[in-house]
Amino acid sequence: MDFTPPESLRNLLPEVRGFIRDQVQPLESALQTKGFHALQPELEQLREEVRKNGLSAPHMGKEHGGGGLSLMEFAHLAEELGRSPLGHYVFNCQAPDAGNMEVLAHHGTAAQKERFLKPLVRGEIRSCFGMTEPEHAGSNPAWLGTRARREGDTYVLDGHKWFTSGADGASFCIVMAVTDPEASSPYLRASQIIVPMDTPGFKRVRNIPVAGEAGEGWASHSEMVLENVRVPVDNRLGQEGMGFVIAQDRLGPGRIYHCMRWLGICERAFDLMCERAVSRELSPGKPLGTRQMVQEWIADSRAEINAARLMVLHAAWKMEKEGAAKARDEISAIKFYVANVLQRVLDRAIQTHGAMGLTDATPLAYWWGHERGARIYDGADEVHKSSLARRILERYGLKKGSAE
Amino acid sequence: MDFTPPESLRNLLPEVRGFIRDQVQPLESALQTKGFHALQPELEQLREEVRKNGLSAPHMGKEHGGGGLSLMEFAHLAEELGRSPLGHYVFNCQAPDAGNMEVLAHHGTAAQKERFLKPLVRGEIRSCFGMTEPEHAGSNPAWLGTRARREGDTYVLDGHKWFTSGADGASFCIVMAVTDPEASSPYLRASQIIVPMDTPGFKRVRNIPVAGEAGEGWASHSEMVLENVRVPVDNRLGQEGMGFVIAQDRLGPGRIYHCMRWLGICERAFDLMCERAVSRELSPGKPLGTRQMVQEWIADSRAEINAARLMVLHAAWKMEKEGAAKARDEISAIKFYVANVLQRVLDRAIQTHGAMGLTDATPLAYWWGHERGARIYDGADEVHKSSLARRILERYGLKKGSAE
Amino acid sequence: MDFTPPESLRNLLPEVRGFIRDQVQPLESALQTKGFHALQPELEQLREEVRKNGLSAPHMGKEHGGGGLSLMEFAHLAEELGRSPLGHYVFNCQAPDAGNMEVLAHHGTAAQKERFLKPLVRGEIRSCFGMTEPEHAGSNPAWLGTRARREGDTYVLDGHKWFTSGADGASFCIVMAVTDPEASSPYLRASQIIVPMDTPGFKRVRNIPVAGEAGEGWASHSEMVLENVRVPVDNRLGQEGMGFVIAQDRLGPGRIYHCMRWLGICERAFDLMCERAVSRELSPGKPLGTRQMVQEWIADSRAEINAARLMVLHAAWKMEKEGAAKARDEISAIKFYVANVLQRVLDRAIQTHGAMGLTDATPLAYWWGHERGARIYDGADEVHKSSLARRILERYGLKKGSAE
Amino acid sequence: MDFTPPESLRNLLPEVRGFIRDQVQPLESALQTKGFHALQPELEQLREEVRKNGLSAPHMGKEHGGGGLSLMEFAHLAEELGRSPLGHYVFNCQAPDAGNMEVLAHHGTAAQKERFLKPLVRGEIRSCFGMTEPEHAGSNPAWLGTRARREGDTYVLDGHKWFTSGADGASFCIVMAVTDPEASSPYLRASQIIVPMDTPGFKRVRNIPVAGEAGEGWASHSEMVLENVRVPVDNRLGQEGMGFVIAQDRLGPGRIYHCMRWLGICERAFDLMCERAVSRELSPGKPLGTRQMVQEWIADSRAEINAARLMVLHAAWKMEKEGAAKARDEISAIKFYVANVLQRVLDRAIQTHGAMGLTDATPLAYWWGHERGARIYDGADEVHKSSLARRILERYGLKKGSAE
Repeated sequence: MDFTPPESLRNLLPEVRGFIRDQVQPLESALQTKGFHALQPELEQLREEVRKNGLSAPHMGKEHGGGGLSLMEFAHLAEELGRSPLGHYVFNCQAPDAGNMEVLAHHGTAAQKERFLKPLVRGEIRSCFGMTEPEHAGSNPAWLGTRARREGDTYVLDGHKWFTSGADGASFCIVMAVTDPEASSPYLRASQIIVPMDTPGFKRVRNIPVAGEAGEGWASHSEMVLENVRVPVDNRLGQEGMGFVIAQDRLGPGRIYHCMRWLGICERAFDLMCERAVSRELSPGKPLGTRQMVQEWIADSRAEINAARLMVLHAAWKMEKEGAAKARDEISAIKFYVANVLQRVLDRAIQTHGAMGLTDATPLAYWWGHERGARIYDGADEVHKSSLARRILERYGLKKGSAE
Repeated sequence: MDFTPPESLRNLLPEVRGFIRDQVQPLESALQTKGFHALQPELEQLREEVRKNGLSAPHMGKEHGGGGLSLMEFAHLAEELGRSPLGHYVFNCQAPDAGNMEVLAHHGTAAQKERFLKPLVRGEIRSCFGMTEPEHAGSNPAWLGTRARREGDTYVLDGHKWFTSGADGASFCIVMAVTDPEASSPYLRASQIIVPMDTPGFKRVRNIPVAGEAGEGWASHSEMVLENVRVPVDNRLGQEGMGFVIAQDRLGPGRIYHCMRWLGICERAFDLMCERAVSRELSPGKPLGTRQMVQEWIADSRAEINAARLMVLHAAWKMEKEGAAKARDEISAIKFYVANVLQRVLDRAIQTHGAMGLTDATPLAYWWGHERGARIYDGADEVHKSSLARRILERYGLKKGSAE
Repeated sequence: MDFTPPESLRNLLPEVRGFIRDQVQPLESALQTKGFHALQPELEQLREEVRKNGLSAPHMGKEHGGGGLSLMEFAHLAEELGRSPLGHYVFNCQAPDAGNMEVLAHHGTAAQKERFLKPLVRGEIRSCFGMTEPEHAGSNPAWLGTRARREGDTYVLDGHKWFTSGADGASFCIVMAVTDPEASSPYLRASQIIVPMDTPGFKRVRNIPVAGEAGEGWASHSEMVLENVRVPVDNRLGQEGMGFVIAQDRLGPGRIYHCMRWLGICERAFDLMCERAVSRELSPGKPLGTRQMVQEWIADSRAEINAARLMVLHAAWKMEKEGAAKARDEISAIKFYVANVLQRVLDRAIQTHGAMGLTDATPLAYWWGHERGARIYDGADEVHKSSLARRILERYGLKKGSAE
Repeated sequence: MDFTPPESLRNLLPEVRGFIRDQVQPLESALQTKGFHALQPELEQLREEVRKNGLSAPHMGKEHGGGGLSLMEFAHLAEELGRSPLGHYVFNCQAPDAGNMEVLAHHGTAAQKERFLKPLVRGEIRSCFGMTEPEHAGSNPAWLGTRARREGDTYVLDGHKWFTSGADGASFCIVMAVTDPEASSPYLRASQIIVPMDTPGFKRVRNIPVAGEAGEGWASHSEMVLENVRVPVDNRLGQEGMGFVIAQDRLGPGRIYHCMRWLGICERAFDLMCERAVSRELSPGKPLGTRQMVQEWIADSRAEINAARLMVLHAAWKMEKEGAAKARDEISAIKFYVANVLQRVLDRAIQTHGAMGLTDATPLAYWWGHERGARIYDGADEVHKSSLARRILERYGLKKGSAE
């Protein structure tokens, strides 16, 4: 056993931390008060700097124009980027574009790569992913209302999506739609289809207020309607009916990325909590950190963050070594475990700040509202817990399918 | 022992619940998307209706033009109003005006009542309360930076306040300021002084973003600066140096009001959770509520809400019967207990809704962000826990003042 | 609303507390080191004193020779008795005799009362209740292996029971056995049958070690076997097939009794915790109670115990006023809520004592082991939570029986 | 990073697991019902078998007659041994002998090694460690009542110890006693002195009931008195005044050992929980494991155990690589984190078993009582949390010593 971080990152990680701290964090407050659009010119400059250093789209292979990091290397980097709500965007590895790039790289045709992948990796455009639907429970992904009817060389799409992150300002959307409602397995009914945002009939209804704030641009989640939306069959990714198989592909690494980003949030919140604990005085000369209740928050947070990071790195290591299928248990476990650590650490950091923790003086309250979703998106806590437990119990002899 | 709710409320409570459900709740979504100002005309109509029914300012004695409810009666009513973020406003018993009315009624001179209390009870103006300061810990209320220097018949105020709720649009602020920095007891240093908002030198810097949203009008919390603000000494409430004694007065009932309002939020969240549990299907014919994890959230929430309500009503009963001083332990206990039940119930209700719980389709996400402060304002959890424990331990023989 | 405890108890409760403290508590350590049998002579003397004061079997009507307290009065008394593991025994209202007395009083024939109830109330004999079976889940009470086959005027019983509390030394057992396996409703299949312990074929296999300690006499739980055990049909309680209906009867008050006993444990543990916190010094002059972590345990415990007591008293009040059927939700809620408060309070009290908390210097460790069952017996947490939630959800429209 | 377990253990670990399962676990129930002495003959046979395989005292260097495993290797092995309460004893690496062997090996003179270490490693004798005192808080180890007064070449010891584990039947005790009460640093006042159990004046008062059970032999914790106990100065370990420095030495690896043993308990409890979940039917054909609440216990336990193991292995790796001093934070964190995981996992496993979980049918209830101490011994939760937090906060600028 060897817990040494990859040698290749020895210098990189502190540099990136410094860059995030000095260049990116100062923009955070404006994200809350002025919005994403107002920040774009400054963000574009930072992205340019990252590009020059060869670190843009770091998770993508160099053959695609990315930074060429391995999964384990990117996991470490993602933690540093996660320390600011803007970190991943500045490095062009923000959700959902990061996942879309991977899907296009693995499953796209040469033409699709040329048209959609290249400008995405170069950071010239953004994209979105149309999976979630208001009328159907996300815990049952095979239960989908959006239809893509085939007419010759054309798909005609009708449906209703929401929580389509980053749709506002995106160039295209990868839409999950049922292409064969009669397929024997419910997991073989849907396909992923690339739909340019300007296709007639594809409407962005609104940006959904999340924690009371609708956001804009990349920092928003939209409700979308598809009415008689027509795209060529060539826009399909992979074989027809392979929508879920391809989606499965993205979820493994996607969850590692989310978890490491959350760890970055945790570490930032931890820093803020400790800085507050030593600087805020309860009475002259008596800082908050002398109080045992605050000490307990700090000790518990430290232990839980350490635990969470080791679990995520172990899952990434296992996925790299044995493949995503063998690491399913580990990935389920980190999804709910880390999301809950995140919520607890944010809660304690806010409490340590008192009223100030609710304001834009730190990103804590922003995360409190916007990352409440961490326990919901990409599989809610209860879905992962139940499926992990059932897989375990089947090894102890539980009859498959006997559990709800 | 008799747990029957006051006879006088038998018909009133269901009527108020119906009014809140039918007239007030439909405006909630707009509070998140359009803001408070846009809603004011409609809110004014509802207030007018409440006034006609003699229920405006229900906590104030009839001699002041209020509804004349006892503490226990108002506690029950406050729960019904709490079911909507707008309920208390419509009944003109919203914080901080409700407390300001009480303070003016108990400590105001005839002239102060005429000028400030009457229009407040009639709902013609709003007011705010300037206590919290960014530079000083709220857990040590005697440690205050704002100064009121006396010059003849005038006070000259200088200081920095924040989280002055409802300052945006208020007519006056009751400002806590140090009048005698040398007083032997730190609790005899400050006075409460009425400062009209248009007094020169009294500036609203900004509405502070809370959970990423700055709000407006009554639904906002401001940062304020006082620079050479001059008001007549006649604007002082009560004797000089009595600021904390008067503040103590408002905190007892104030905490009962907050707690009952939170219980209203809890019950509304509980309703939303149950309605979702029976209507959202995981697969055709299999609603969420058939799942044990959801059942556990419902059972735990039911038990905790019941416990919380009984504790608050018991504290109100004790306060009415034996006075606020004798009920200090009970009031400390409800402050942190109920605020934590509130957070857990909101958390479970959001989780039951999945992605929808993050949107403006319900007030859950709004409360998640805006009521995170419940564990902070009016005494943070840790402050109440520590002071409750110290009072208890002193009865077991702990030397007074020996604990931190 | 009126939270004043019953006037009739004003003097009684402090007297009983004093008696328990001065006479009963000193025997506790010996219960752990010498066992129940060694204590019996001293316990008998105390019981005699209680009898003289008319307080023996306080929950039973005076017409049966009991103390004649109402449910609400007994609930208050039970808390005082619960402060010692021996309190209920000394007052002859220990489980399972207390419940057996009630069942015999309500459902026994004159002959049954004469033979079994009278000596029980007088404290001359003990009894047990044979319900739980090792092979069948307690959460499904209708699923029972013990059979009572009728042969003329005789029942022939065969079966296997365990956790038959107090069987060691009892005179008779009320056995739950299936009399009609074909009854349409599973809840009409069983009957309760009185079986004298010396009936041939009725064997006590062993006292089961609980938390590593098998106990003896009343303070034990036995495994029992019935092989061709023959008793007259006259030994049946009530009508044939009414076993569950009668059992239901005992559960309502029984749960109130348990909960109030647990509250007595909680209050005793709370006292021990506070006494330790003020007397144990971490360094000269610095007692444990000056530490915020300990303060938090004390504050949380105080709040939770208060909440628990109010809930139990409210449930008792509702049961007295509207009957057990109307109070089902409240009884489910207290069963799991209070049992969990009990565990948390014991846990904190032990932690406050450090190593000493594990020893026989206090009853804390004894309760830690022996009351771990509180979350299991009379319906496990998860059973009550699920059934409470389902009853609630059915009011919101959940189809009856649709949930697991 | 590489999470592969040491190659050297690839075959060993499954063999040891099989041996524990087939040879050791069958004796567990008798430990609860018959006691340690009755088991000794069978245990001796198993120890002989382990010795033959060269695995006795596996943590000790081969030069001392041990198994020669590295810290990391032994950590893995200790988890397997921990699956039974008797595992470590059978492999002669039980506390406190394991630590005593290490201390003697590092600090003992040649004569001390010959007389005390050799027979200990060979498993011919047992020993104990006299640190804890009833009158002084364990959280302040420098505050000690036992004195060793020097008279020429003799130490004369007087004092009172308790929780001296394994004293019943031990050959010698390493006693921590103050040799220089005036030493400038409180951490330089005490020495460790070897005291044969048969030295006049050294009395075992009793075995202390823990969770109501006093135990015997190795499986017990004694109260001890030293009255005018005289031993040669040559029995001192290391330099005079070095008692705490030497103790510090043992604590680092000692905590790793405890934590890995607890993980063995966790894994065994997890197995028992899963086996129960698939075999216990709630109704015919519907096992417990189909219920979501049970699934949640399983999923949470799996995640927490994985987290705990990774943290412990990481701490062991860091200690091996950088030394115990550099790994202080990690060791504090695992001490409280793993002890709490242990308690939660045991709690869930018991709950899954229902009444059976309280009996001797599994070791769960035994551990529930006897491992409640895990959160207390070797530094209580709150001590580790506070000291970890203070070390962290000092890096953020907290003035050393400013916190309580």
